[in-house]
Amino acid sequence: LAMAFGMTVAFAPVPRITWEHREVQLEKFHEPGIFNYSVLLLSEDKSTLYVGAREAVFALSALNVSEKQHEAYWKVSEDKKAKCAEKGKSRQTECLNYIRVLQPLSASALYVCGTNAFQPACDHLNLTSFQFLGRTEDGKGRCPFDPAQSYTSVMVDGELYSGTSYNFLGSEPIISRNSSHSPLRTEYAIPWLNEPSFVFADVIREHPDGVDSGDDRVYFFFTEVSVEYEFVFKLMIPRVARVCKGDQGGLRTLQKKWTSFLKARLICSRPESNLVFNVLQDIFVLRSPDLKEPVFYGVFTPQLNNVGLSAVCAYNLSTAEAVFSGGKYMQSATVEQSHTKWVRYNGAVPTPRPGACINREARAANFSSSLTLPDKTLQFIKDHPLMDGSVTPIDNRPRLIKRDVNYTQIVVDRTRALDGTVYDIMFVSTDRGALHKAVSFEHEAHIIEETQLFPDFEPIQTLLLNSQQGKRFVYAGSSSGVVQAPVAFCRKHGSCEDCVLARDPYCAWSRAAEACVDLHRTDSPSRTLVQQMSGDTSVCPNETKSFREHFFKHGGTAELKCSQKSNLARVVWTFRDRVLKAQTPKYGLVGRKDLLIFDLSEGDSGVYQCLSEERVRNRTVLQLLAKHVLEVRVVPRTPAAPTPP
Amino acid sequence: LAMAFGMTVAFAPVPRITWEHREVQLEKFHEPGIFNYSVLLLSEDKSTLYVGAREAVFALSALNVSEKQHEAYWKVSEDKKAKCAEKGKSRQTECLNYIRVLQPLSASALYVCGTNAFQPACDHLNLTSFQFLGRTEDGKGRCPFDPAQSYTSVMVDGELYSGTSYNFLGSEPIISRNSSHSPLRTEYAIPWLNEPSFVFADVIREHPDGVDSGDDRVYFFFTEVSVEYEFVFKLMIPRVARVCKGDQGGLRTLQKKWTSFLKARLICSRPESNLVFNVLQDIFVLRSPDLKEPVFYGVFTPQLNNVGLSAVCAYNLSTAEAVFSGGKYMQSATVEQSHTKWVRYNGAVPTPRPGACINREARAANFSSSLTLPDKTLQFIKDHPLMDGSVTPIDNRPRLIKRDVNYTQIVVDRTRALDGTVYDIMFVSTDRGALHKAVSFEHEAHIIEETQLFPDFEPIQTLLLNSQQGKRFVYAGSSSGVVQAPVAFCRKHGSCEDCVLARDPYCAWSRAAEACVDLHRTDSPSRTLVQQMSGDTSVCPNETKSFREHFFKHGGTAELKCSQKSNLARVVWTFRDRVLKAQTPKYGLVGRKDLLIFDLSEGDSGVYQCLSEERVRNRTVLQLLAKHVLEVRVVPRTPAAPTPP
Repeated sequence: LAMAFGMTVAFAPVPRITWEHREVQLEKFHEPGIFNYSVLLLSEDKSTLYVGAREAVFALSALNVSEKQHEAYWKVSEDKKAKCAEKGKSRQTECLNYIRVLQPLSASALYVCGTNAFQPACDHLNLTSFQFLGRTEDGKGRCPFDPAQSYTSVMVDGELYSGTSYNFLGSEPIISRNSSHSPLRTEYAIPWLNEPSFVFADVIREHPDGVDSGDDRVYFFFTEVSVEYEFVFKLMIPRVARVCKGDQGGLRTLQKKWTSFLKARLICSRPESNLVFNVLQDIFVLRSPDLKEPVFYGVFTPQLNNVGLSAVCAYNLSTAEAVFSGGKYMQSATVEQSHTKWVRYNGAVPTPRPGACINREARAANFSSSLTLPDKTLQFIKDHPLMDGSVTPIDNRPRLIKRDVNYTQIVVDRTRALDGTVYDIMFVSTDRGALHKAVSFEHEAHIIEETQLFPDFEPIQTLLLNSQQGKRFVYAGSSSGVVQAPVAFCRKHGSCEDCVLARDPYCAWSRAAEACVDLHRTDSPSRTLVQQMSGDTSVCPNETKSFREHFFKHGGTAELKCSQKSNLARVVWTFRDRVLKAQTPKYGLVGRKDLLIFDLSEGDSGVYQCLSEERVRNRTVLQLLAKHVLEVRVVPRTPAAPTPP
Repeated sequence: LAMAFGMTVAFAPVPRITWEHREVQLEKFHEPGIFNYSVLLLSEDKSTLYVGAREAVFALSALNVSEKQHEAYWKVSEDKKAKCAEKGKSRQTECLNYIRVLQPLSASALYVCGTNAFQPACDHLNLTSFQFLGRTEDGKGRCPFDPAQSYTSVMVDGELYSGTSYNFLGSEPIISRNSSHSPLRTEYAIPWLNEPSFVFADVIREHPDGVDSGDDRVYFFFTEVSVEYEFVFKLMIPRVARVCKGDQGGLRTLQKKWTSFLKARLICSRPESNLVFNVLQDIFVLRSPDLKEPVFYGVFTPQLNNVGLSAVCAYNLSTAEAVFSGGKYMQSATVEQSHTKWVRYNGAVPTPRPGACINREARAANFSSSLTLPDKTLQFIKDHPLMDGSVTPIDNRPRLIKRDVNYTQIVVDRTRALDGTVYDIMFVSTDRGALHKAVSFEHEAHIIEETQLFPDFEPIQTLLLNSQQGKRFVYAGSSSGVVQAPVAFCRKHGSCEDCVLARDPYCAWSRAAEACVDLHRTDSPSRTLVQQMSGDTSVCPNETKSFREHFFKHGGTAELKCSQKSNLARVVWTFRDRVLKAQTPKYGLVGRKDLLIFDLSEGDSGVYQCLSEERVRNRTVLQLLAKHVLEVRVVPRTPAAPTPP
């Protein structure tokens, strides 16, 4: 049994360090009586963290979330609650106002929507007074009715793009732009959206060299029921969809509907191991001045046979754009009168290309707006919103596969190590309140540490990264509150060896300070710093371990302490330079590290060493953790001498 | 981490007892230099176990496999080996003679086939002289060329029915009857067999009340590539196929081909948990006088996302027969010129029904043999061998689902408990040399015990059950040898409580013998026996646990022993009737059971009890395992008194 859960098992990278909740300093926020801290938003200047919870919005200090700056409550009126309860919903859990949209509207206001007892509503929150303006708008199409349903939204140039359900029952899914001058939405039809779970949305600004350039695009990510695949039961499939900001709908066909709605499969799989991750949990868009294009990081779980398995896949924006702008479409066909099957469409495609943004080429051909698009193009896109090509991940494989865990959310920080190499650090949350910090080294995934952010193992619902220089934090929201964690706990590594073996790009050993320090917050000159992403500890200065001396009586039991945090290391005890076998009548281990020596005699006197043996990149690194000198003294036996139990 | 592997995790029934290889008495057989003990066969009188290995066949005593009775070798000649090596195969591993077929031919002979260095051959083994007759026949179609390829066969009335590959490359799969007067085979076409892995074959004798009666049928079980399903990559599907013994092929269409070959999906899934077990590993046919019909027990693993997950599903013969004799067929259709899709065929079906055996109805309509079947029926079955209906398991759910294990083989024994209830005991082997013995109690699966049959964790390749009264054994074959295990280790349970908590239908506590005895081998009258499948230990006679007394010195460390084999139990220590918290500075646990008490003082004197707390059917059963009286005596402190480490 022990071997089955060991490190050698596939897809089981073990977090090197596990920080229990009490072991590390975390800032926490929780308002008594308020639950479901599900939406997080940073202010423009990154000094304030806005939190949307059930019936409340808070402004917290982004440097320390335990410092509450403001609060605003938005409760459901008693008569609304009564009406909701009349419709069979729960007064205590459902007929409340769950904040689901929290978007920046201007420098002085946020746009806020909530489920409002199954009557979704939106309002403006003044950031100066931190009060709702009471300009309540209908939230239908912007926010779900039901707090249990999925939602996503993004504010683009003052207009809210959202993916949600449009009715009380939650049976009508919609991706829409809520705009006074040009509202647009998806067709209500299976080929457009088939029982989707919305995950994420963001705007991708026009890039002058982009293949489908000429307009900003809004990307939506969701999981829906597949039409193109079939197995023993309904199969889910993760999708990326995109619409163009300049879309104004069709004139007759697709009036007030997207003319630029295209969707494609997101692939996250490992065919050689028969692993298919087809349920998308979260997306993070990594942007960086040194990246040519944004990278989408996705967290996936499998739908089938998932007894605890998760993966992270990363996608280049250009891969998705190529599928949308140049790929084949899918089409449905009726087989034997009663079966609908989706296959690749190999026929002629109308021009302008269906689903394309109005780009330079279209404008050059005198199509200045989607309103002027020919009916053939519109009819085609109405029937063929699904692309045949798939969006495949970078390197055609997952960045990280982890068993015995269900990942829920992801944020990614791009950081430069001491030697100038850039690393993408993945912070991935679990459904049991933990945060995994992982990095991908040449196809080998290393989970630097696991931090128990929430002591009672509740699912983490949302993650937000503050990547400001010197103030890098990860914020996590759950049902019970908000927790703030630094991106690294460098100071916790007590020796140069531990600091190097952590293989944490944020941390380096300072010879000057004799401490493991945060690379981005230290003023030690870099030549005095030691960091080796390979885990090569030979660069560490020599250190002489001091002895601890103990005296014990003949016939007694000795306990020798040894401390080692690494889950990748094995503790080995030596006596007079020979390895001891624990779990024999003579020796025992307590807590798998401390040595017990039973029935002491003079022969047990001598030097005991506790070594850790850690596998790093197929090398074994030995580290001396503790050194004890034991001296056993004979005392004359008395009648009260211990009898062996 | 500990919680993730705990008992509360879904699909993780933990074997109650784990017997290490050395803990139980097992009989073993291994001939030096001989490997791959892959085929087992019991003699008619069940006194001899025949074993087919690489280049050898053995006859062992079925009562004790360590007693070899006979041996016969069948080695590959040097020139055959050279020719095989010339074709690029390995001289050391592939160009040898792996025995794959070992079937009873008559009372005095076995029919034996081997891969014979990629030139499969068959011979007769005389059981009197235990020598091969040297009547070598071509084994093509009876035995695979490649030892790595799948195979199955069954001897029916002197004719060998087999599923194997028909050529050197292993690319042509075939299900055939090797008969001098009426050889038959499958069409070489994707709809018939699509990259199958053959698992099992057996004959089902005519049953006068059967729905498709009138002939004996041979059932084949295999996993093949699905034509009807599609996902991100090739999907496997488990199948059951059947042919009729009386089939003689068609006259023109399907000449020398099966006219009665029909196949259907075997379903083993748990939709509410998204579990799909679509790779069949093994089948056992359970027959019993008290069963109306044979029951097929199958062991499955998932193809997708399998990080260690297995299931057992059971099927009634009649469920399969109903699909074959009354269900709809599937048909292929071409969509958009280039895609082949399989859908239900709703059109007219010719008479006689395609694929049916020549039954009374057919004979009444003057179709006395398959040779007289009309061309329309033959052409239809040629194109439509796949049924649309699925063969679903009994109770529509798996009998057992187990995570963190890959099951390989299964045998099932039907046994009567003391109260007359009949239980099907499943013996399932793993790919790591273990045997699980499981029973299904009203939808709750209980793994009675896990026995490590092979010390070096190699996959178990074959299992055979000897279910003779009083001589019930399970035989297991692996690469290294054959192991024989009794069906139960009743005597290992030392107390009535342990015997009852085992919930093992084979075992009962004998008040007379004061021992846990094998129900079927004891001569104690049944009124003196105690057995409770509910695990209710209140029926056990009261037993007074004797004290063990210990004297310890002030300041020393005491170790108190406690022994408990059940993996479902938790050990709790009490002191003066209050539960102790281990892993505090005062107390420690060694091996998770034995108690350490550090820094003894007079206050530690008193009664210590070790209790086991075991969950049985949502009840907690407390059992006193050990009782210790500790007395700490003050001795005058000396300079050599221990210093706290």
